[in-house]
Amino acid sequence: MWYPEPIQLLIDQLGRLPGIGPKTAQRLAFFLLKQPPEESRRLAQAIAEAREKIRYCSTCFNFTDIDPCAICRNPNRDPHLVMVVEQPKDVVAMERTREYKGRYHVLHGTLSPMEGIGPDALKIRELEARVAQEGIAELVIATGSSLEGEATALYLARLFQPMGVKVTRIARGIPMGGDLDYTDEATLLKAFEGRQEL
Amino acid sequence: MWYPEPIQLLIDQLGRLPGIGPKTAQRLAFFLLKQPPEESRRLAQAIAEAREKIRYCSTCFNFTDIDPCAICRNPNRDPHLVMVVEQPKDVVAMERTREYKGRYHVLHGTLSPMEGIGPDALKIRELEARVAQEGIAELVIATGSSLEGEATALYLARLFQPMGVKVTRIARGIPMGGDLDYTDEATLLKAFEGRQEL
Repeated sequence: MWYPEPIQLLIDQLGRLPGIGPKTAQRLAFFLLKQPPEESRRLAQAIAEAREKIRYCSTCFNFTDIDPCAICRNPNRDPHLVMVVEQPKDVVAMERTREYKGRYHVLHGTLSPMEGIGPDALKIRELEARVAQEGIAELVIATGSSLEGEATALYLARLFQPMGVKVTRIARGIPMGGDLDYTDEATLLKAFEGRQEL
Repeated sequence: MWYPEPIQLLIDQLGRLPGIGPKTAQRLAFFLLKQPPEESRRLAQAIAEAREKIRYCSTCFNFTDIDPCAICRNPNRDPHLVMVVEQPKDVVAMERTREYKGRYHVLHGTLSPMEGIGPDALKIRELEARVAQEGIAELVIATGSSLEGEATALYLARLFQPMGVKVTRIARGIPMGGDLDYTDEATLLKAFEGRQEL
């Protein structure tokens, strides 16, 4: 016990955050103790309030403060086009393009037999229900390009194609500004396979 | 506005922490939203309580929940020996050795004319008062070995030596387990100058 108890408790709690080791937790704790009290109180309050007000949208399972979420409520978004993503942050990434006008479905993970994550651990049953009820014409599978992301995409294609839904996958290829020289072989192969006529 | 307001607020507040960029703030926010509510509440509470209960020790200016702090209250610690450090975390680092039995004085910074930090911005007047009142025999200057740390050490030596106090400086040299090959010239020079008979 090198610290007074309230400091130790704060360091312990900060150290539970992902990517925050003991040294960083200590640095953050001292920062919080040194800044004006109202600043620290504002952070404490933001944490408590976010946790209290934010829930999952009962339709797309994105985070929201009002259910259904702003995107699901928006009559200008195409209800027949649904993009399937792994995490809420992927919705934000896609929204930044300002181009996508469909809706979303957040799986909250990928299939991972190694870690015992099967379809029931994700929001896949909920997606089946949406497909059955909402008249969805196209599912754009936008899971990541990891092994698990690709496997999940394949699983979803096999599940939904027999239901008469068009299932597409976002393109994999070299990133904008990317150099062939610095691109791995798997990406280059995908870029070649996905080539389009100019 | 890609996020519901409570999430944006949380990301903004987390982003004010040192070393936490927008991406990390987003990742932490999502982590806090996904973990059980009582976990997040515990962090919020730890922040609020630490900020409320922790103050500076009126003697040594270390963080404490009871004034004077546990070290200044401890009758087994030598009151005639005071180690001067930059920050509260330096006290913790030194206490880990379990060998030092004197007391401390936390400056809360180093002199830095470039940044306009003069003696009055640090707890140097308070140290003068302690030297005058507490019968301190030796001040061990344990500021860091940066330019500012060394300058502060020199300043303190010049200030307190005329008052009849022995002023010492912690040794600078190669770290334990250190390799000469990987040690910079300035450190090697200090290690040579500080050589001791075996």
